[in-house]
Amino acid sequence: MILAVCLNPAVDVTYSVTALRHGTSHPVSAVHRRAGGKGVNAARVLAQLGEAVTLCGFAGGGTGRWLRDELSGSGVTERLTGVAGDTRQSVAVVDDADATVFNEPGPVVADGDWDRLADTFAQQLAGCAAAVMSGSVPPGAPADAYASLVRIARAHGVPTVVDTSGAHLRAAADAGATVLAPNRDEVGLPSGGRAELLAAAAELSGRGGGTAVVSAGRDGLVAVSGEHRWAARPPRQVTGNPTGAGDALSAGLARGLAREATWPLVLADALALAAAAVAAPVAGTVDLDLYRELADLSTVEDVPCP
Amino acid sequence: MILAVCLNPAVDVTYSVTALRHGTSHPVSAVHRRAGGKGVNAARVLAQLGEAVTLCGFAGGGTGRWLRDELSGSGVTERLTGVAGDTRQSVAVVDDADATVFNEPGPVVADGDWDRLADTFAQQLAGCAAAVMSGSVPPGAPADAYASLVRIARAHGVPTVVDTSGAHLRAAADAGATVLAPNRDEVGLPSGGRAELLAAAAELSGRGGGTAVVSAGRDGLVAVSGEHRWAARPPRQVTGNPTGAGDALSAGLARGLAREATWPLVLADALALAAAAVAAPVAGTVDLDLYRELADLSTVEDVPCP
Repeated sequence: MILAVCLNPAVDVTYSVTALRHGTSHPVSAVHRRAGGKGVNAARVLAQLGEAVTLCGFAGGGTGRWLRDELSGSGVTERLTGVAGDTRQSVAVVDDADATVFNEPGPVVADGDWDRLADTFAQQLAGCAAAVMSGSVPPGAPADAYASLVRIARAHGVPTVVDTSGAHLRAAADAGATVLAPNRDEVGLPSGGRAELLAAAAELSGRGGGTAVVSAGRDGLVAVSGEHRWAARPPRQVTGNPTGAGDALSAGLARGLAREATWPLVLADALALAAAAVAAPVAGTVDLDLYRELADLSTVEDVPCP
Repeated sequence: MILAVCLNPAVDVTYSVTALRHGTSHPVSAVHRRAGGKGVNAARVLAQLGEAVTLCGFAGGGTGRWLRDELSGSGVTERLTGVAGDTRQSVAVVDDADATVFNEPGPVVADGDWDRLADTFAQQLAGCAAAVMSGSVPPGAPADAYASLVRIARAHGVPTVVDTSGAHLRAAADAGATVLAPNRDEVGLPSGGRAELLAAAAELSGRGGGTAVVSAGRDGLVAVSGEHRWAARPPRQVTGNPTGAGDALSAGLARGLAREATWPLVLADALALAAAAVAAPVAGTVDLDLYRELADLSTVEDVPCP
């Protein structure tokens, strides 16, 4: 089993309207709701690939109940921890021109909530081959939220993939996460070249000895693991919806850890999964036919040390 | 007890953002949720006035459960009928300049759902002094939705107030609703003068013999009941949030029916309640101090027949 962690899941709501006009009232012609958040998306991709996957995180209120119900039909086993507030909604208003998004902050996590989550996480680690943790940390959670989960997983001998940003990312690296998987924006390099991305990955990897994988969208990814450095490119460019591609990449990295595959194979497979996520219209799903076509076709190149 | 009907209640969500920008992503700084919809607002005002009030209507999904929970703390006894879909949300995005609103259509009502609602409504009529029905009719409900409830209430000897528009309003009038309570927009006269409003009220009243009360916001209201015609003005102009003022007016009319008060007194009281709703910041509440100050001070004038 692979354990996914989504501390701040969301009900992703999409409203279709004719044209958004500031200060007016809009009838919504179509409403779509879906359980989302980066860790939920990663869990859904793993379930779609046939992996047994369990989800930890927080859920509360009517939106939290809705999220649990929806996940129960998606193949993801949820072990979400209840909180007093309402699980956040993310509302995307889509008209002919564009998408306009409103993100609720999410419920505040109390100390007791965090302790119950950590207990549940520790219990689920039994029989778990890898853990993947993705996304932002909700208000009220401890400053070392991901780092403390990494330490618990290490104590149980379970490898971890962490996709987050800022101080939470650095703390998870310091705590010895097996893989750090931010994207180029999350390491502050929205337009950096390969050398800069490799330097950022090396810095992250050096903190706690983990493998750092920095994804760069259409440009592929770079990875640093001890003395090893790789640059990988997707087999071909895929057009579509890039939202959720990073979550599919994290899911692929966790599956690679669970299978104890070699790094070049893991990176190639995870890149194919990210491309197959771009080709699927909804975040948290992949185009399985495209994935099977692209798997192992990515170019993974050893980069000599400078 | 007064019975309120809200066929398409809503969870009213308010998002505070710094400035709405089309095509961008917005962190929401504050989220407020409240059970709403016109019939719910009327029920809440009656509860605030200390009246025993029971609510019929439809509710479904996580939003429906949230709505039931919230109402349970508001003094309204809910006897909502479950449906398969999710109770609609109405999302108002408020920035420094304006409010931009997105209204979901609401769940589709199946034939069996309607039959269960009508049964619940009939059961609740025992011991009921008046029924007030407000708002739009959800998709899937029968074309004679309000009219059929009016007929059931008449069979139980319970007087009714109906606030809706279009064919549903005319059908309720034809079915013999005791009071029809549209606003000027709902009878197609957004800028009509007193004579036009009285003519519209007379037409509605003539259909089934009910009293027609057409409200005109700051201009007060007109009413026609058989040979009697009145024009009423609020005692003074009140500034604030006019959303929900019409629902407070309907609540006041239903309370007047329940008390078997005379029409001039009922109209004056209901107008004071509408003004007190404008002074309260949130729809479905009234400023009780202002209501007590204004009650019976409205000017109700007999208008001679033309």
